[in-house]
Amino acid sequence: MNPLDPKEFRKQGHMIIDFLADYYQNISNYPVLSQVEPNYLKKLLPSCAPSNPESIETILEDYQKHIIPGITHWQSPNYFAYFPSSGSTAGFLGEMLSTGLNVVGFNWISSPAATELENVVIDWLGEILNLPKSFLFKGNGGGVLLGTTCEGILGTLVVARDKILSKIGSENIGKLVVYGSDQTHCAVQKAAHIIGINPKNFRVIKTSKLNSFTLSPELLLSTIENDLKNGLVPCYLCVTVGTTSTTAIDPVGLLCKVAKNYGIWVHVDAAYAGSACICPEFRYLIDGVEDADSFSLNAHKWFLTNLDCCCLWLKDPNSLIKCLSTTNSEYLENSASDSKQVVDYKDWQVTLSRRFRALKVWIVLRSYGVDNLRNFLRSHIEMAKTFEGLVKMDKRFEIFVPRTLSVICFRILPYSKKVANGKVLNGGVKLISNGEGIVANGKVQNGGVKLISNGEDFVANGKVQNGGVKLISSEDVVANEINRKLLDSINGSGDVYMTHAMVEGIFVIRCAIGATLTEEMHVVKAWKVVQEYADLILKDRKG
Amino acid sequence: MNPLDPKEFRKQGHMIIDFLADYYQNISNYPVLSQVEPNYLKKLLPSCAPSNPESIETILEDYQKHIIPGITHWQSPNYFAYFPSSGSTAGFLGEMLSTGLNVVGFNWISSPAATELENVVIDWLGEILNLPKSFLFKGNGGGVLLGTTCEGILGTLVVARDKILSKIGSENIGKLVVYGSDQTHCAVQKAAHIIGINPKNFRVIKTSKLNSFTLSPELLLSTIENDLKNGLVPCYLCVTVGTTSTTAIDPVGLLCKVAKNYGIWVHVDAAYAGSACICPEFRYLIDGVEDADSFSLNAHKWFLTNLDCCCLWLKDPNSLIKCLSTTNSEYLENSASDSKQVVDYKDWQVTLSRRFRALKVWIVLRSYGVDNLRNFLRSHIEMAKTFEGLVKMDKRFEIFVPRTLSVICFRILPYSKKVANGKVLNGGVKLISNGEGIVANGKVQNGGVKLISNGEDFVANGKVQNGGVKLISSEDVVANEINRKLLDSINGSGDVYMTHAMVEGIFVIRCAIGATLTEEMHVVKAWKVVQEYADLILKDRKG
Repeated sequence: MNPLDPKEFRKQGHMIIDFLADYYQNISNYPVLSQVEPNYLKKLLPSCAPSNPESIETILEDYQKHIIPGITHWQSPNYFAYFPSSGSTAGFLGEMLSTGLNVVGFNWISSPAATELENVVIDWLGEILNLPKSFLFKGNGGGVLLGTTCEGILGTLVVARDKILSKIGSENIGKLVVYGSDQTHCAVQKAAHIIGINPKNFRVIKTSKLNSFTLSPELLLSTIENDLKNGLVPCYLCVTVGTTSTTAIDPVGLLCKVAKNYGIWVHVDAAYAGSACICPEFRYLIDGVEDADSFSLNAHKWFLTNLDCCCLWLKDPNSLIKCLSTTNSEYLENSASDSKQVVDYKDWQVTLSRRFRALKVWIVLRSYGVDNLRNFLRSHIEMAKTFEGLVKMDKRFEIFVPRTLSVICFRILPYSKKVANGKVLNGGVKLISNGEGIVANGKVQNGGVKLISNGEDFVANGKVQNGGVKLISSEDVVANEINRKLLDSINGSGDVYMTHAMVEGIFVIRCAIGATLTEEMHVVKAWKVVQEYADLILKDRKG
Repeated sequence: MNPLDPKEFRKQGHMIIDFLADYYQNISNYPVLSQVEPNYLKKLLPSCAPSNPESIETILEDYQKHIIPGITHWQSPNYFAYFPSSGSTAGFLGEMLSTGLNVVGFNWISSPAATELENVVIDWLGEILNLPKSFLFKGNGGGVLLGTTCEGILGTLVVARDKILSKIGSENIGKLVVYGSDQTHCAVQKAAHIIGINPKNFRVIKTSKLNSFTLSPELLLSTIENDLKNGLVPCYLCVTVGTTSTTAIDPVGLLCKVAKNYGIWVHVDAAYAGSACICPEFRYLIDGVEDADSFSLNAHKWFLTNLDCCCLWLKDPNSLIKCLSTTNSEYLENSASDSKQVVDYKDWQVTLSRRFRALKVWIVLRSYGVDNLRNFLRSHIEMAKTFEGLVKMDKRFEIFVPRTLSVICFRILPYSKKVANGKVLNGGVKLISNGEGIVANGKVQNGGVKLISNGEDFVANGKVQNGGVKLISSEDVVANEINRKLLDSINGSGDVYMTHAMVEGIFVIRCAIGATLTEEMHVVKAWKVVQEYADLILKDRKG
């Protein structure tokens, strides 16, 4: 047995290429959201690994028969869920070359090209994003390609923590405070927990529809001031450019200015929206980034780079290296590292082993060219405008928050307030009423305590019981149920896949445009699907 | 522009397959260790990304001309460095299919097959490793495929920390103690630092050549007792099966028994050696694992699975989920997750986004079959025996520690003690002598303080100054320099690539056999290369 026999590799490799080319050709025929039931697969596969080899033909047959039905097709043109993972031929080729070389690029010597090409593409990308030179290698900053934003946040959080603890002593870790908004990605809270931040010191600053769900610099300031008054120590702020729920754009410059006064590390998480900033007309979204400490985007979201690829830039990479370099590992030492003339990326990240991700970014940039990449992103935004226009034309629907880029948040308003007044759909969930229970975010919030309405808030035993969640009207409770049902029907059709967000207690449907194969006709069809199921649901309600 | 045009995908995909097949065909022609100089690449590439598309032919030409010379060829049959990354056609195909689907499998609904196939292969692998049923899904344990062992250690450390802090209060984080040996992988210390363990509470228990560099249960016990006496709280122990330097096998069962008495979480890190445990004759290496809490191995090291793929099993996955589940992320909610009938792997790991790694493990297991996989590992061990035999036949060399599996640690002893007595080679490093400086690990250790020899230790101002590092004889200092020079010459030839380890101050050359393409003839040739350069160096010394 020679598992890397060139002849066999060639034969089987060609087979898979054809298989995948056919997959892309026929991808629209599959239900975009997998329709299998939980635990479907284990019944179909043997309970143990085979003792003897099986042919690639048999394996591919099983793949087609058993695996494909359990796939949610992220590359389908009808995929509008979460944020898309925009694969491409160039991204795929880069991944193939990287997988073929199979180098473990923890330090420079383990494959100099892996490190140096990463340095190059970090600067290339930084330049087309028009990042300040201080974030680029050529300006004594620098960056790294990680798997996910979560890793970037975790790493920079550790730096921020250690910087402060080196001054106030590690016994004071319980005093450190991390700031985000109620729209900040859950990765920040998780990372803060991992590095030992007291959960009570994770500040979830409230946003509101009035501010388009952006983090308010004034609220940040007053929260910081309040923490200082209580003897706590502000440490880290995550500013989001393009939040997951509604693509809210936090005001980078203003927030940095507030944070800098207190020596807070500012990370700008532009996981999705960052890519758009290669277009000059959207670069304003990150204006003020020159005052941040670190900036990241996910090239696997909206930059045609296959999963995984998070690009992280920092002004002061040495602070990261100081925190994350490995010690006590003589077996990794070598004269190139000793010379300090090279980058050892193991010291820029949480993990040691790392894949050669730079290849795919390099091939994407060269294969498509920056002008085409810009136009490609613009085409998604144009399609989003089309979808938005269609929603606006149907008076039963509303655009819930203004569209920024390629995500549209909308919902159906099943009836006018007049019709709705006093009428509530139940659907198994307890609904708001005097002395029964508060419903917010679709769930009973009061833990069974009898409540009395008090205008906006619900009161029990003289105390407000709603935990900061905005209470919603009974009409909105009904609307939430209807929209949830509508989304379930749409997704159950297999024709399109969209997901939802819940903001201020309101359930909104998100249509995120950015799958590589999506064209205008798919967007128009997606809207037709939404309308069809809306017709059915409204008819059911009347009937 | 359609970046996933099936016709173009097919054409370019085939081109890359041929390119890679040729690469494997000709891989022996490349110097296995890249011979480029630091910063070679940036001079060869343009300073910014191109505005316009470039053809795949042009890109591949540049790849061959500029990237390949900077590659250290981990897939070369002459690669014997670190631990190999054993790629295979099956592993490559799995990665291609995964990259082609490009699904982001954070939760079940995002691609049920990605989660469920992972459940299946975790149990398949667990069974062929003969892991206790309590580690398998079918025994209410379970596992997950991560990128690297570092992630597995980080995750389980957080669980161990939180378990104890929930009892003693998070303000006592400064009291937690983490245990390993001086041979434990640097990832543990790094992870402990990341999660906020006081660096003073990371115990590096000394090993010695007498115990083949394994962690002594007696020393562990006395270290724990001492910590308890000082009011500290034992938290986590990393047991290593196959250490990086010398493949030392810590006594799993005995260490677990000590740790369990104190409620310490035991993780068994079998990153490299774990794969061998699929062979019944090597399964004894992890005997006693039934008393551990978690166990991991890297399928990308020695299981024909292309990078990256760490398999982590736990007895109590719920403890992991409790620590690492995301909160405050309504946009990820869905009815399958709510039903609690499915696994959402985002809650088993530090990051959110994750690749469909199960495919490659599945295809490797099926494509080769368990019997062949066992024989493949055995063939590497046989080749290691051959190499070991060759070393033993040359009286100038010694096997430094007994070989366990496929790694041989050896060194040249350039002269007998009699000849060496009083003669020292300098090579720019200060050598041990009265009143000059201590040399250990090849570096001056005494910070310039004048020292007086005192038998084994060196003394200055009445205090022992060697910081726990075993002092070595001047003969060993010379041997270290010669072996370092020998290794540099070997690696500079481009004919083979080996790395080193430093144990008890002794520099040893490691020959790690396990690259997929390595056959007996490569091992024999590797030894000839070592001998040739040894001849040259010894001749130089005489001359």
